[in-house]
Amino acid sequence: MKKIRLFTPGPCTVPEEALLEMARPFEHHRTAWFKEVIKDCTEKLQKIFLTTNEVLIITGSGTAAMEGAIVGCHPAGSKALVCENGKFSERWGLICDQYGIANMRCKVEWGKPIDPAVVADHIAKDKSITSVIVVHSETSTATASDLEAIGKICRQHNKLLLADCITSAGALPLRTDDWGVDVLITGSQKALMLPPGLGFAAVSPRAWEVIEANKAQHSFYVNYNKARKSAKQSDTPYTPAHLLVRGLRVTLDLLLNEGLENVWKRVAGMAAATRAAASAMNVQLFSQRPADSVTAFNVPAPVVEKELRKMLREKFGIHFAGGQDAIEGKIVRMSHMGFIDSIDTLGAIAAFEHSLHKLGHNFTLGAGVAAAQKVFVERGM
Amino acid sequence: MKKIRLFTPGPCTVPEEALLEMARPFEHHRTAWFKEVIKDCTEKLQKIFLTTNEVLIITGSGTAAMEGAIVGCHPAGSKALVCENGKFSERWGLICDQYGIANMRCKVEWGKPIDPAVVADHIAKDKSITSVIVVHSETSTATASDLEAIGKICRQHNKLLLADCITSAGALPLRTDDWGVDVLITGSQKALMLPPGLGFAAVSPRAWEVIEANKAQHSFYVNYNKARKSAKQSDTPYTPAHLLVRGLRVTLDLLLNEGLENVWKRVAGMAAATRAAASAMNVQLFSQRPADSVTAFNVPAPVVEKELRKMLREKFGIHFAGGQDAIEGKIVRMSHMGFIDSIDTLGAIAAFEHSLHKLGHNFTLGAGVAAAQKVFVERGM
Repeated sequence: MKKIRLFTPGPCTVPEEALLEMARPFEHHRTAWFKEVIKDCTEKLQKIFLTTNEVLIITGSGTAAMEGAIVGCHPAGSKALVCENGKFSERWGLICDQYGIANMRCKVEWGKPIDPAVVADHIAKDKSITSVIVVHSETSTATASDLEAIGKICRQHNKLLLADCITSAGALPLRTDDWGVDVLITGSQKALMLPPGLGFAAVSPRAWEVIEANKAQHSFYVNYNKARKSAKQSDTPYTPAHLLVRGLRVTLDLLLNEGLENVWKRVAGMAAATRAAASAMNVQLFSQRPADSVTAFNVPAPVVEKELRKMLREKFGIHFAGGQDAIEGKIVRMSHMGFIDSIDTLGAIAAFEHSLHKLGHNFTLGAGVAAAQKVFVERGM
Repeated sequence: MKKIRLFTPGPCTVPEEALLEMARPFEHHRTAWFKEVIKDCTEKLQKIFLTTNEVLIITGSGTAAMEGAIVGCHPAGSKALVCENGKFSERWGLICDQYGIANMRCKVEWGKPIDPAVVADHIAKDKSITSVIVVHSETSTATASDLEAIGKICRQHNKLLLADCITSAGALPLRTDDWGVDVLITGSQKALMLPPGLGFAAVSPRAWEVIEANKAQHSFYVNYNKARKSAKQSDTPYTPAHLLVRGLRVTLDLLLNEGLENVWKRVAGMAAATRAAASAMNVQLFSQRPADSVTAFNVPAPVVEKELRKMLREKFGIHFAGGQDAIEGKIVRMSHMGFIDSIDTLGAIAAFEHSLHKLGHNFTLGAGVAAAQKVFVERGM
């Protein structure tokens, strides 16, 4: 018997209901039916993002959506403050470079969050900065930054705020309008519980002003002005991956029926239980400000990361992610997003505990699941 | 009862086997398993395209794949001859314009093919032309151009040939290597029988030389050099729509098990039967060189196009496409691609005949299906 249990921070477990919806009789996308699906998904995404901003559905990964946002929001003469504390924030700086967009990197050691005070400081010192690019939840290091505080600073100083919410939207508390996020980006394969293939953007009127007036070189394919024009008709400029959009309607209904704040609580509970288990198993967290959507563990000596993930995968069907770049081989990452609950999480912790024990890590066996269980009982989950 | 029968020239009917494959337990994409899927699909795509060229699998529509090709193949100092005879060839000119790529439009009336002699003439007159962009099968007008002859001219004069084979690859005879096609582009939702969401490119060593050396502005997301680097490892630079790639393996197996030349024959047979039916029903074809992958009919007076498509859709569940831009309301289009055969096609012709009759077109009722039936019997299908 082989069960697949995805605890990778994307793709995450997709509900069978969504998979089966996508296997239903296959229709055309330029139809009244599909416009209705787009309209419905758009409204539901606004509810998930807590925004009245216009939402774009883009066929491509989150990177495609981010490229469109960065290019659109940076006409000649603009300058981005790129808050860099991991693999994904690094990528957004590379996009700026590739398009010749002036940018300053606010570099922070991997595992640390972005300090809002440092953002404020940069903005105060360099008057030419017009925008701030920040990753809400840095998936590569499992670190959450205080997007609300950063949003406040951006609003005070009238800077555009572009936020990569790829592993936060639908998982962590995120109030787009209240926090003043001008462009929120996310992808389908994280908390939205879908397979990969769609990117999303929620764009504020402030950002649209800049994007509309921007005469700089855009990508032809990922072009927010064109996407907006179509979105107003509940349509897309080019052929969309409409199968995924159909699945999206199912997963958005699941999330909204659970209730957004309940989803946040479920995710936070699974993360808290996981951190309690780590502590009980004498495993250190990599992040100095752990995100609730994903946990990164330092792999304790003498355990070898590759063997740990292999055992999890082959013995238990549990998929953790490894580290990237400089921290490859040093950490493993476990997701709290997707179609999973406390029971699934306890199972993953049990497998993690079992594997650590087998691979020579020294701790009180059973302490991990017991600690997690306590948290779940306390939280009534 | 409601059956959906897609005769739109994309998306086309997807085999249940592929839909169900995509509903199977959901795995991660950065795994040995998925690398094997990519490798397998790449090799099978090479067999469909009849090429040894490297193949890229791009998450996005065919337009994304085309953008990457056009940008990559046109460094500073290059000039494209854009052969324009319909909606899609028009789009490729727009991409050139947007990136400031010098280009000459070789414009031909919609419905006519590209004349290879005219291409030769342009190349002879304008020595600065470095590439030719042509659409093999112009979906908007259902017109096939002689790609083999155009390829020969490009090889004689050492020009790069970029071919949009979006509604030809896997449907019409197409011999990438023999014909000297430098960049072949196609999408998932046509003859490859998948839902939309993937674009494909097969790129020749000649084209790679140009793309590799090109320092011009590329899109970050659709970047052939990056895609190539990953493809060499059976991987992708960003998160791929891996569910679709998994479905792709199923549809490629179906096509290759049928045999590529048999697929071409099946498509050609359905097209020939459809044209015979049109003639028998006194319906004119729009194209002066009809493609076998899709047929465009002039809507005969007094039939109203919208009513015709509505009746087809609502009474018979049959989806035809309309016309675009200047020919909107004047034509309807019927696909011969996808998971369909002679029996399906005869059903569509019957519904078309029935609807034309009901909507006031004057012809001998039954002549359409009888003419189609004769063709199928002659061809043993």
